[in-house]
Amino acid sequence: MGFSDVDTLAINTIRVLAVDATFHANSGHPGAPMGMAPVAHVLFNKFMKFNPKNPKWLNRDRFVLSNGHGCMLQYALLHLYGYALSIDDLKAFRHVDSITPGHPEAHDTPGIEVTTGPLGQGISNAVGLAIAQAHTAATFNKPGFDVVDNYTYSFLGDGCLQEGISSEACSLAGHLQLGNLIAVWDDNHITIDGDTNVSFTEDVIKRYEAYGWHTVTVEKGDDDLEGIAAAIKKCQEIKDKPSLIQLKTTIGFGSKQEGTHGVHGSPLKADDIKQLKTKFGFNPEQSFVVPQEVYDLCHKVAAEGAAKEEEWNALFAKYGEQYKTEAADLIRRQKGDLPEGWEKALPLYTPADPAVASRKLSENIINKIYEVLPELVGGSADLTGSNLTRWKGAVDFQPPSTGLGDYSGRYIRFGVREHGMGAILNGLAAYGTILPYGGTFLNFVSYAAGAVRLSALSQIRAIWVATHDSIGLGEDGPTHQPIETLAHFRALPNCMVWRPADGNETSAAYYVALTSKHTPSIIALSRQNLPQLEGSVIDKGIKGGYVLHEQEGADVTLVSTGSEVCICVDAVKELAEKHNIKARVVSIPCFEVFDAQPKDYRLSVLPDGIPSLSVEVMSTMGWERYTHEQFGLNRFGASGAYLDVYKKFEFTPEGIAKRAVATVNFWKDVPNIRSPINRAFEQII
Amino acid sequence: MGFSDVDTLAINTIRVLAVDATFHANSGHPGAPMGMAPVAHVLFNKFMKFNPKNPKWLNRDRFVLSNGHGCMLQYALLHLYGYALSIDDLKAFRHVDSITPGHPEAHDTPGIEVTTGPLGQGISNAVGLAIAQAHTAATFNKPGFDVVDNYTYSFLGDGCLQEGISSEACSLAGHLQLGNLIAVWDDNHITIDGDTNVSFTEDVIKRYEAYGWHTVTVEKGDDDLEGIAAAIKKCQEIKDKPSLIQLKTTIGFGSKQEGTHGVHGSPLKADDIKQLKTKFGFNPEQSFVVPQEVYDLCHKVAAEGAAKEEEWNALFAKYGEQYKTEAADLIRRQKGDLPEGWEKALPLYTPADPAVASRKLSENIINKIYEVLPELVGGSADLTGSNLTRWKGAVDFQPPSTGLGDYSGRYIRFGVREHGMGAILNGLAAYGTILPYGGTFLNFVSYAAGAVRLSALSQIRAIWVATHDSIGLGEDGPTHQPIETLAHFRALPNCMVWRPADGNETSAAYYVALTSKHTPSIIALSRQNLPQLEGSVIDKGIKGGYVLHEQEGADVTLVSTGSEVCICVDAVKELAEKHNIKARVVSIPCFEVFDAQPKDYRLSVLPDGIPSLSVEVMSTMGWERYTHEQFGLNRFGASGAYLDVYKKFEFTPEGIAKRAVATVNFWKDVPNIRSPINRAFEQII
Ligand SMILES: [Ca+2]
Ligand SMILES: [Ca+2]
Repeated sequence: MGFSDVDTLAINTIRVLAVDATFHANSGHPGAPMGMAPVAHVLFNKFMKFNPKNPKWLNRDRFVLSNGHGCMLQYALLHLYGYALSIDDLKAFRHVDSITPGHPEAHDTPGIEVTTGPLGQGISNAVGLAIAQAHTAATFNKPGFDVVDNYTYSFLGDGCLQEGISSEACSLAGHLQLGNLIAVWDDNHITIDGDTNVSFTEDVIKRYEAYGWHTVTVEKGDDDLEGIAAAIKKCQEIKDKPSLIQLKTTIGFGSKQEGTHGVHGSPLKADDIKQLKTKFGFNPEQSFVVPQEVYDLCHKVAAEGAAKEEEWNALFAKYGEQYKTEAADLIRRQKGDLPEGWEKALPLYTPADPAVASRKLSENIINKIYEVLPELVGGSADLTGSNLTRWKGAVDFQPPSTGLGDYSGRYIRFGVREHGMGAILNGLAAYGTILPYGGTFLNFVSYAAGAVRLSALSQIRAIWVATHDSIGLGEDGPTHQPIETLAHFRALPNCMVWRPADGNETSAAYYVALTSKHTPSIIALSRQNLPQLEGSVIDKGIKGGYVLHEQEGADVTLVSTGSEVCICVDAVKELAEKHNIKARVVSIPCFEVFDAQPKDYRLSVLPDGIPSLSVEVMSTMGWERYTHEQFGLNRFGASGAYLDVYKKFEFTPEGIAKRAVATVNFWKDVPNIRSPINRAFEQII
Repeated sequence: MGFSDVDTLAINTIRVLAVDATFHANSGHPGAPMGMAPVAHVLFNKFMKFNPKNPKWLNRDRFVLSNGHGCMLQYALLHLYGYALSIDDLKAFRHVDSITPGHPEAHDTPGIEVTTGPLGQGISNAVGLAIAQAHTAATFNKPGFDVVDNYTYSFLGDGCLQEGISSEACSLAGHLQLGNLIAVWDDNHITIDGDTNVSFTEDVIKRYEAYGWHTVTVEKGDDDLEGIAAAIKKCQEIKDKPSLIQLKTTIGFGSKQEGTHGVHGSPLKADDIKQLKTKFGFNPEQSFVVPQEVYDLCHKVAAEGAAKEEEWNALFAKYGEQYKTEAADLIRRQKGDLPEGWEKALPLYTPADPAVASRKLSENIINKIYEVLPELVGGSADLTGSNLTRWKGAVDFQPPSTGLGDYSGRYIRFGVREHGMGAILNGLAAYGTILPYGGTFLNFVSYAAGAVRLSALSQIRAIWVATHDSIGLGEDGPTHQPIETLAHFRALPNCMVWRPADGNETSAAYYVALTSKHTPSIIALSRQNLPQLEGSVIDKGIKGGYVLHEQEGADVTLVSTGSEVCICVDAVKELAEKHNIKARVVSIPCFEVFDAQPKDYRLSVLPDGIPSLSVEVMSTMGWERYTHEQFGLNRFGASGAYLDVYKKFEFTPEGIAKRAVATVNFWKDVPNIRSPINRAFEQII
């Protein structure tokens, strides 16, 4: 391929920048950038297709640094190639409010595709990006118009390989025969605890072959640039398997401590830096220096990338002439906008409609919207028949050779791989043309907590269809009945947790989830049937909380979600008839959305002067924010028929009435009862 | 080995019981029990060492049903062999308050070793049980006294193999060369979504070989009893590798729908049951019938097991004569009691002692107690140098052949495998001779949420050393800074979340964590230094909450945890000097333990008449339960030096004082301010 001294200089520049930035920050991970600088240079300089002036170009190759702690590698590359990341940004590495935080954050920094650092996430996002590419290509490419043909590259370390999430995603990637995915394993034999021999002696190559991956080994990853290039080229040629390159490297290459975990997670010492710069031909007295010939080399590639985008723009313009609808659709999808009028497809209900499980209401929605929202792509972690996530006649996303579907298919069989699914959803969304969803039991969204957290942090629109949402699932018992789950995800910033009470609220939940471009949603859905409620309308539901049942001169407000709202409605009767107590009912299907409403609206829902009681069959944690008293379940559930379980814990009209009476009595002597909506100061959000 | 018709009858009895119980419950999973009945029979009848009359016999073989949804298999076996599980208990399958819940729960049912159902957990628990056996044997066995030489057997399905947690645990098991672990994969080619071909086409055997496992395949798992027995025998002989038996079976064997996912998760139809019973020689009009010769066959094995325990008791008595200390220690450990006076080893501090990070305080404790608590065995998920979980001179738990340690070693190198580690901790604890702990960053305990949940549900004493507990970790940034994590685990029933403020509180946290036999703990520890506080003493700390700083005629109570307590102490000065406000300070290092104190004590800590303000640098969710106002961080953190990050979000004496002033002003017109401790009714816990 032809490499010269300037390539070596570029590689050493990356190394020195990583050394300088971590030293300047007095914190960070120099070792991985120093070890992976050669492959990074070869990849970016000879293979990657990208235009630094437009980091969002659809057909760019995607690059994911799964070992995100090595982000100085990526920041250095972004700077060298001319992304909007200056030398001053490198100097601000790991400083408050910089665009160069301690781990790469996609929403902060141009050129970062996904947020990584928590190990195993990036490579699993990369699987999602590769699925998205294959699906987008199968859907939009036409003869003579390879509108989308990019690769996804990912670097990963030993830690990523040890994490179960990557096992899940990579097993699926092998099954799906994702030939567009090329991963590079930084095989440096070092983790934080020292030599990988202490805990990681499996045969990684054999494992990946077992997954159905193509593999290749580069013995001399520190300097065999030709070998690295040949390996990447070979992997590009393999079209029906994802590829793993085992790249043997020396962590902290060039440091006096190279090859030890001493260079993994702390800056190099001053004298070490001095010898390293001298050895690499840099002035040991200077920092953050980039030789002009390195800029020239990189900017040339950047210019070629810009030219490639120009070419592509011309191709896409021609495509637009021939395939007007498709082109418009592709442009629309990239903006995250939904098709005009799509929301008319959302089903609406009246109290005359039959009682239905909200998981079934969700299925109804999916069946109605899949046609008007072609970007909707999703599946289930092997619970299709329980989550009801598949529309009638859906085509599976499968390698055509399996005969089970094709890459234009929009239904993904994730297997029993919740955490992998979560990270794949993030990758699907990050690609830019897909609105992803995934189904599992609510209790097992917790298996994917690491991925959900990154959806929220990196502002990704992904939807969890989380069925079997409470003790109401009945017989499966405490191992499957969520107690803490809603509190957990309600406490997660920028994550909507919905628990709709009936059909209109379920439509409201989907409406907000689908239209919130920068926020993931978890929609908690019942296994058991729920009646269509008087007073529930979609326009109120989308506010996250509203008065379902108003009552002049009420003595108490019952506040509830999901399957308990209808029991509260029955409790109103019970209270009136047996206790002469007037109760109003408030439904709060989504805390996060309700919190975002104007204060006077929230106060109209939860007014001063009336004591309130929350009712939800799980942990009461968090309900104190809205109500004076809380009826919930601060223990594990029970295995049995669902009505028996509800009865055991007194989630019945009588059980609610009993506690409402206690609430009224307890608060009757308090003058001017203050609504919990009133607070002394604003929260930091 | 010799099998006859009565063996076949026993196998069919298991099948029919599973069919009857699921039909009777109108719920459950008959398919797996029907498919795995042959291997279950062979294992229990010919190999397993157990005494149904004493399910806690130390040297019993452990059996773990990782595909816990097939629990009717296990319940049937427990019944047939004479455990305290009657036919009526089988009839009560999946009924409220039965000992036969929808998934097996160890704390409910005699003979169940660990709680399974959430997929992948059981096989990972089994790895923990096998580690525990190897460690206990290496520690206690003496020439001529193999006090502990049991095997751990685990059945698992495709779902367990797909879950990342099992990849983590099984990779480690291969590294650790656990020859005492034998797993049987129910290779029935069926998952809930249908044929495994839709998502799971990897070469499982090759993958397990890559992990360093011994593997063997039984082609005819439905009826080749000799083949099954030969496979188990072969696996027993392999001493330096865990074994995986690929057992090809037919799910729902005997049903008209055998081999399809139709038999996976719902009872058989009445007519199908009729034909099945007829085919198997049972009376189709009767249910829950066990032929006497089957009872006889099983009870004979049970009697042999009882005799084996008798023999073992004799051996152990002799052992006790020769190795008095060891025998006493082993007996003590099994009761879960700690050695008399161990707590004297806990370090105590005075305000004159220097400021230290609480992760370092935790290290001090581990260094002091490891000698007096020989059952303490633990490690870190590849963050040893950050979590500070290793005592000086600790020996690694490693296969002796590696030269890195031996099986008597008490320090486990878990690798970057948090979820696997969590499940292994559960297995270690379940064995009965070990008190396990594991370290990672608090943020990554979330990766292990599924395992922590099962620790709590199954009442297991396991300790998470969860360092880097907040934005105070600084430069690593939002990807690593917990926000929702404490709320999540505080909402989990029977899980203690500790966040100690200084040395004495850290000792208190360890004291309660180590002495709570039936509750797991997460101890959240700071990266940054914390001063030793005036007013912090261990006797108060162990109450979970106490008055750190009392103040006559206080205007406000500041309530805090961990690293923010010392800032609250500084805020008291700020408030007195600049705002003429008197503040008291309360520390609540553990909600769960504080909640368990008598109400009058809790009211003395958080009295009526004074408004209160909580201060914690993470989600405020849950703090409304204790305080009138909340200062927290309901957004993601920031990457930067920790003091800069604290300043950015105003977690400074000034920032706290500002909000305390707002609190006092907001509540000054409210007469008789009620403490949030006062509630209208008791919670269900
Ligand atoms: Ca490494
Ligand atoms: Ca199966």
